[in-house]
Amino acid sequence: MTQSHFILTIRCKDAVGIVAAVASALADADAFITESSHYGDEATGLFFMRTVFRPTGMRVFRRDDFAGALAPVVGRFEMSMDLRDAAERMKVLLAVSKHGHCLNHLLHQWHSGELPIDVVGVVSNHDDLRRLVEWYELPFHHLPMDDGKAAQEARFRDAIAASGAELTVLARYMQVLTDDMCRHLEGRCINIHHSFLPSFKGARPYHQAHARGVKVVGATAHYVTADLDEGPIIEQETQRVGHNLDPDAFVRIGKDIESVVLARAVRWHAEHRVMLDGRRTVVFA
Amino acid sequence: MTQSHFILTIRCKDAVGIVAAVASALADADAFITESSHYGDEATGLFFMRTVFRPTGMRVFRRDDFAGALAPVVGRFEMSMDLRDAAERMKVLLAVSKHGHCLNHLLHQWHSGELPIDVVGVVSNHDDLRRLVEWYELPFHHLPMDDGKAAQEARFRDAIAASGAELTVLARYMQVLTDDMCRHLEGRCINIHHSFLPSFKGARPYHQAHARGVKVVGATAHYVTADLDEGPIIEQETQRVGHNLDPDAFVRIGKDIESVVLARAVRWHAEHRVMLDGRRTVVFA
Amino acid sequence: MTQSHFILTIRCKDAVGIVAAVASALADADAFITESSHYGDEATGLFFMRTVFRPTGMRVFRRDDFAGALAPVVGRFEMSMDLRDAAERMKVLLAVSKHGHCLNHLLHQWHSGELPIDVVGVVSNHDDLRRLVEWYELPFHHLPMDDGKAAQEARFRDAIAASGAELTVLARYMQVLTDDMCRHLEGRCINIHHSFLPSFKGARPYHQAHARGVKVVGATAHYVTADLDEGPIIEQETQRVGHNLDPDAFVRIGKDIESVVLARAVRWHAEHRVMLDGRRTVVFA
Amino acid sequence: MTQSHFILTIRCKDAVGIVAAVASALADADAFITESSHYGDEATGLFFMRTVFRPTGMRVFRRDDFAGALAPVVGRFEMSMDLRDAAERMKVLLAVSKHGHCLNHLLHQWHSGELPIDVVGVVSNHDDLRRLVEWYELPFHHLPMDDGKAAQEARFRDAIAASGAELTVLARYMQVLTDDMCRHLEGRCINIHHSFLPSFKGARPYHQAHARGVKVVGATAHYVTADLDEGPIIEQETQRVGHNLDPDAFVRIGKDIESVVLARAVRWHAEHRVMLDGRRTVVFA
Repeated sequence: MTQSHFILTIRCKDAVGIVAAVASALADADAFITESSHYGDEATGLFFMRTVFRPTGMRVFRRDDFAGALAPVVGRFEMSMDLRDAAERMKVLLAVSKHGHCLNHLLHQWHSGELPIDVVGVVSNHDDLRRLVEWYELPFHHLPMDDGKAAQEARFRDAIAASGAELTVLARYMQVLTDDMCRHLEGRCINIHHSFLPSFKGARPYHQAHARGVKVVGATAHYVTADLDEGPIIEQETQRVGHNLDPDAFVRIGKDIESVVLARAVRWHAEHRVMLDGRRTVVFA
Repeated sequence: MTQSHFILTIRCKDAVGIVAAVASALADADAFITESSHYGDEATGLFFMRTVFRPTGMRVFRRDDFAGALAPVVGRFEMSMDLRDAAERMKVLLAVSKHGHCLNHLLHQWHSGELPIDVVGVVSNHDDLRRLVEWYELPFHHLPMDDGKAAQEARFRDAIAASGAELTVLARYMQVLTDDMCRHLEGRCINIHHSFLPSFKGARPYHQAHARGVKVVGATAHYVTADLDEGPIIEQETQRVGHNLDPDAFVRIGKDIESVVLARAVRWHAEHRVMLDGRRTVVFA
Repeated sequence: MTQSHFILTIRCKDAVGIVAAVASALADADAFITESSHYGDEATGLFFMRTVFRPTGMRVFRRDDFAGALAPVVGRFEMSMDLRDAAERMKVLLAVSKHGHCLNHLLHQWHSGELPIDVVGVVSNHDDLRRLVEWYELPFHHLPMDDGKAAQEARFRDAIAASGAELTVLARYMQVLTDDMCRHLEGRCINIHHSFLPSFKGARPYHQAHARGVKVVGATAHYVTADLDEGPIIEQETQRVGHNLDPDAFVRIGKDIESVVLARAVRWHAEHRVMLDGRRTVVFA
Repeated sequence: MTQSHFILTIRCKDAVGIVAAVASALADADAFITESSHYGDEATGLFFMRTVFRPTGMRVFRRDDFAGALAPVVGRFEMSMDLRDAAERMKVLLAVSKHGHCLNHLLHQWHSGELPIDVVGVVSNHDDLRRLVEWYELPFHHLPMDDGKAAQEARFRDAIAASGAELTVLARYMQVLTDDMCRHLEGRCINIHHSFLPSFKGARPYHQAHARGVKVVGATAHYVTADLDEGPIIEQETQRVGHNLDPDAFVRIGKDIESVVLARAVRWHAEHRVMLDGRRTVVFA
């Protein structure tokens, strides 16, 4: 994209004329739509829209110009609206414990320019992955649990605030966040759970899955909420497993699924493709 | 859908203001959009749109009223436009040879009300599946090849014309259509090829796949064109296979994939979700 | 297979020398092994084996001859052993309520010679699918629930006994069996559950899945046990779903998965490929 | 595995008594079989076997003891036999050009102890990935093409020889090897092709796939042979793609599939699970 593009996302009560109003405001501003998706959820009565456009007019348009052009529509339909320059990368803070596969995958994708985010640092309750993080010339915040969860979470929050991160990604961070922290990060914290939720919540899900004798394992990327492993699901994927595999093999196979599923969820969130619809998500992938 | 719904599909050169114009015309007619997708192909410069809406106004609106309301927009953007009552089921003629799995799946889905089509008959160059077809109280046209392909295809065309079918589905019909017949049915004939195209074109694809030692087999539903097995792909699906399976097992496993893939392609076409974009298809699934 | 083949399955405590003993007994009887799998579960200490062989010797060998040849080995390792003529098709009774998709798929596969079973009849608590069953010239046992579950299950048991069925398949049979009936059918009754177990046990799983906002749905074929939806899993499969699909679409998509998963489980059971290993199954597919 | 284990692989003409002979030789040596698979290909008349066992006897057994115990059987059936200590990791040399995703995945899996190989170095015709390789404290052999392919390949061969590598992995190495080099590495060189072979051989397969309008893309790990992209396939995997994705998105999605497929193939080869059966492979996964 050599030209500037903007990403517009809208969420409001569904009604006649929304698309017409938004599209007309954009057309009047000479915006050329390159990508657009909308969805009206008949169950909740909510309307969701994501539109990518670029200016085409003689008048050079900036983000704020478009925001101004859309303001009457936003007011009329009482929309919750977000408008971003597509070139502006979302700042992301990663959190990890000792399993480095998700972290390694995200850092590689980011570093090779494939993942449109701006990684601003890595938080960990262990020091094991410092060397990997430092190879990428990123700040590594070692926040051990020694002084108790409250103190550690306070430092975690400070790290998020100081980094300017809009999104926190729990890339196999093996600590349960307090309700308070969950609420603080609502809608801007993604976790990878190493099972096909809602099966096998909680600890050692691959061992649970093995004991139950499943023939397919999976992983789930979801927004963190105070309700453990119950947050809105962004993405899931599965993989077949045979009877000859032991729990360790489930763990190993699961790592590939986790890495891919989490990276997809982070990408979609960073591209403003994911919107909350009650306990569900709308994903304009 | 207790209320009437309409399905609008549009194809035209991409430009600023198309969505605004279409959506405004619909909003002015008090149409409530329940589903909408559009796509601009930057490579071909073409724009595609599919919108489902229902009337909400005091004024009772029929299809022709909406068509009239959209006419100026259609003219302005030189659109190819199609507008259908969603309750109107597409008439479909099925063609089959001796393998009944795709036919059986389509007929069951249709009969149980899951597939929104109106099956108007079955054509076959063999008589083997007559009893199955007649159980469904459908006309069975036995059109053997005895008098040569030209004569048989003439009768096939007559059957299509007489049935009023808008779509012909080759549900494992093991005859290669002549170029002439392909052109006659362009864009309104779907074939299921029993391989993951473009791999293994032509005859006995599962045997080719087995000889090549693939670890995954697949099936492909595509529009029929004069270029054998080269038509625009609508849907594909794959399934893993092990070294211990012989070609007959590939064939057996393939049957399930073929049935599912073909039924999906027929559904999407019948719901006006598939649009041609050069050699590719846009599928608003 | 123009020649006769035999299928040998063995289950015993694992030990040194089992394979040697079995294979030697077979070799001494001039049996040519065409397929063989074994598995020792280190967690349970159990050994499982499935071997397919054909006689090659001058001496004509029947099933009982091979059973005799194996008897010393069976005794020595205290094996639970089963030996079948591969040409002998397992008698199977199907049970269904009103959703005919699994039944239709099984009957078509059986009728076209692809599923190596001998369907001996269909039981249903409703009369809706009688015409389909009778087209296949099979006995249809309409066993309504009018007189209560106890009376109905007694008639169900009688139907199983009278038919000589070795396997009962609940092909979307929407009645919960009593504990007594479950125990009676232990290890010889397969159910299809329309979710990816252990997620969404119980009623209306697709609606549960939709409410939870999953991105993948699935189906599970398992042995029936008194513990509802907790029986050993034979096979599972999944399919992606988008936010734009409502619960009815989940149901529809699920039907294809259910049909395929159940048919696979029935095939594997009928070919003696499935063995119980505690709560898990060993599947030599 | 705290105890020593051995991996036995056998390939020979199929016959009565092979399993009996091998298993008896092992049982006589007090070997406890923990994993075993065999397969007789009726088409080629070849027999393949892979058995993992551990010594249980009082007499301490080493690899050579078991080899001696098996020698008579190997001679009798004219077997090609291989016997390895399972703890002995295969030495592997990686080759790469500029795309680092497969390399990064393999190195991470190896470094975290998940991939049972011993990486002995990385060869590249570019210098771009040196820093990544050196982080892992591995030798990086920069072998540019400046002096022509013949000279470069000579140095490549020298690097293989000097490293003691038993396997060379082309992890997106974008040079076509000469016939001579292919023959030199026959059966000990794995390539990842970024398409679902045999579709889209040669260059820019994702662009080919996009132009053809496929709905599924894939990747293929195969042994390198002089016949480009025609070598025996070890593993394949696929992923759905939509019409809204451009060739660059195909490339990006493909990278995840390539990484996972190649790592699986390398693991299976390193665990002696892959055997050549003409143009096909037997994979005891």
